[in-house]
Amino acid sequence: MANAIVGQSGGPTAVINASLAGVFEAAKSRGAKTVYGMRHGVQGLLKSQWVDLGEHLRDDLDIELLKRTPSSFLGSCRYKLPDAAAQPEVYEEILRILDELDVAWFFYIGGNDSMDTIYKLADYGRSVGSAIRFIGVPKTIDNDLEGTDHTPGYGSAAKFIATQMKEIIRDSLVYDMRSVTVVEIMGRNAGWLAAASALAKGPDCEGVDRIYLPETPFDAERFVEDVNDLQRRKSNVVLAVSEGVRTADGRYVCELGQALGAADAFGHKILTGTASYLAGLLASRLGTKARAIELSTLQRCASHTASRTDITEAYQVGGAAVKAACEGHTGEMVGLSRLSDDPYQCVTVLNDIHRIANREKKVPAAWITEDGAGVTDELLRYARPLIQAELTPISVNGLPRHIYLK
Amino acid sequence: MANAIVGQSGGPTAVINASLAGVFEAAKSRGAKTVYGMRHGVQGLLKSQWVDLGEHLRDDLDIELLKRTPSSFLGSCRYKLPDAAAQPEVYEEILRILDELDVAWFFYIGGNDSMDTIYKLADYGRSVGSAIRFIGVPKTIDNDLEGTDHTPGYGSAAKFIATQMKEIIRDSLVYDMRSVTVVEIMGRNAGWLAAASALAKGPDCEGVDRIYLPETPFDAERFVEDVNDLQRRKSNVVLAVSEGVRTADGRYVCELGQALGAADAFGHKILTGTASYLAGLLASRLGTKARAIELSTLQRCASHTASRTDITEAYQVGGAAVKAACEGHTGEMVGLSRLSDDPYQCVTVLNDIHRIANREKKVPAAWITEDGAGVTDELLRYARPLIQAELTPISVNGLPRHIYLK
Repeated sequence: MANAIVGQSGGPTAVINASLAGVFEAAKSRGAKTVYGMRHGVQGLLKSQWVDLGEHLRDDLDIELLKRTPSSFLGSCRYKLPDAAAQPEVYEEILRILDELDVAWFFYIGGNDSMDTIYKLADYGRSVGSAIRFIGVPKTIDNDLEGTDHTPGYGSAAKFIATQMKEIIRDSLVYDMRSVTVVEIMGRNAGWLAAASALAKGPDCEGVDRIYLPETPFDAERFVEDVNDLQRRKSNVVLAVSEGVRTADGRYVCELGQALGAADAFGHKILTGTASYLAGLLASRLGTKARAIELSTLQRCASHTASRTDITEAYQVGGAAVKAACEGHTGEMVGLSRLSDDPYQCVTVLNDIHRIANREKKVPAAWITEDGAGVTDELLRYARPLIQAELTPISVNGLPRHIYLK
Repeated sequence: MANAIVGQSGGPTAVINASLAGVFEAAKSRGAKTVYGMRHGVQGLLKSQWVDLGEHLRDDLDIELLKRTPSSFLGSCRYKLPDAAAQPEVYEEILRILDELDVAWFFYIGGNDSMDTIYKLADYGRSVGSAIRFIGVPKTIDNDLEGTDHTPGYGSAAKFIATQMKEIIRDSLVYDMRSVTVVEIMGRNAGWLAAASALAKGPDCEGVDRIYLPETPFDAERFVEDVNDLQRRKSNVVLAVSEGVRTADGRYVCELGQALGAADAFGHKILTGTASYLAGLLASRLGTKARAIELSTLQRCASHTASRTDITEAYQVGGAAVKAACEGHTGEMVGLSRLSDDPYQCVTVLNDIHRIANREKKVPAAWITEDGAGVTDELLRYARPLIQAELTPISVNGLPRHIYLK
């Protein structure tokens, strides 16, 4: 039996290491002699940077810690392979390294850009008659991958966003004065993460008042009017806004400040955050107290509030990728297919990588309310199962314990 | 037996409601007929806004939810009572309302500004021969209150900061490129919260590289040089910085951008965040990738990661306040006195309110490293016990359940 290799690519998530654990354990149990881990994805591989994962994941406790450790255990990259026709030497080098390591199975955990790597390597491998199997493992908090009901990583980010939003809403009501809280949520082109803020609403929480997604053109005048109306009925307003919202002519809202000439102390144009721009706009136009909160990087690394459903599925897609390679598949990505919402059931499936790579799945128009500032019950039915249950952190001395490559 | 009244004042914390639960249950068990809650502190009381807490906290489950609900259940205010000699009518009105409600015990949960209210009311009460007992209950994430080893609220904020910092550090190492991450932490004048970022370091975490506190004058040139040196030894650097750091001449670092004339799209001078200013400075001077993260409001409302030690103590100081009132004390604040670090033991004590109100306790100079960019083991020994153990959120449908006044 030969060896396996696995890499992590693109932005990290809270559960990308659960997929790594799934690949590692399944590869071992299906007979891989050594499971290598690329440092910093294909970019590191090309520099001959890899580790023998078995030396770092020695027992069941290491696996449990790995499932609870955020960010990419192996490191990541944002490297895009060149066109094989233009630079075949890059591909020859990768195959030479893989052959030297006696690798039969190649796994890559990532989003739509990373799937481009599987796409190109599998096509090139086929063209030169390589026996190596190339399989993609889905991962992204953005939930914008085709070929899967949802992506591992999304559920935990959604749970973090909804949890923080509930706490922010409680916080926003504390003073007896008019206020607007604008919360900025990740998502440049797809509004899945901002949409998750709708999950905060329930019998113990008023919920957010408006949700602005990149899928709907943003009209600043209408926005100011609408918040003004809202504040006549309730004095404390909470808004969720995607970092990627843009105007009808395609400009990001965070660029509007720049257009007006704002520059920082170093003379650079300010990439004011979207929330901070909108809070400034509301304060200035409505004379209300307005504050901006960016959930920022915490959305992709908050493993302490990960969804158990998400961790389980992240682990499953890793294992399913190994099964696929073992059964002779190549040039495919594992996806999740939902059988039902209630009871929630999902199974793994395989997709031709050509139908996945470099595409983006957005929030369907039918799941956005007519006013463009909210989401429908369909979205809640879709997202709610993904945030269910917890995987308790292993707390040592008051803090969640992680594992890392020293 | 007469009635009790309790209010919450100043910025909220993750555990201020545990103190409310402590006051409520102790007052009930010591015979208070009705326990009233002021809406929005004394400001609301003066507008005759109160609730009968017994109508809203009906059973043990409500109490458990209250302990896990962030922000001030009763609402808060930042109202400072006028001088009694100048405006006695305000005090007459408060006493009239309290007499009308047949209140014998008055509790106020808050920080140094809020203790000014207890100070003034107790002095006024004594001067007019009122039998009402006025007792302060300590609360602030800032940990800057005199008369107590530490303040309820600090431990949970410290635990949140250290937890997030561990996750951010993992995230910061993901790409194979030079980077600086500047994390901004609350604390205008006292660096207790930023200091808590030192707790992240351990066998599974490299820890933060530098910690900048308001207690030490900030030298921007030395800062740039130091980070430059650091990056020669390690490519990914993580810095914790208090929002309140300032230069030797007393200017806040976040004002330096303003001094250079930066203005936002609305023509207002930009109150650039400290972290975002420093990240811009490093990017511009060192040509490194630099990002800013503000932990923002989440620090004071993240009850999902509260410290059980903190919740327990918050509850205890509430109960001890009732005991003090019941035994005839007035014009005092409950404090915590540490008997030992290991095993950690604290007991409640009483302090004359005149020695507490309007003062600020800073991080001792001896607990700051000589270079002014770190903290000593003494600080770790002090802070570590305060973040121990968890109080599991009561998760319903994937999210922590809260309780709120409808």
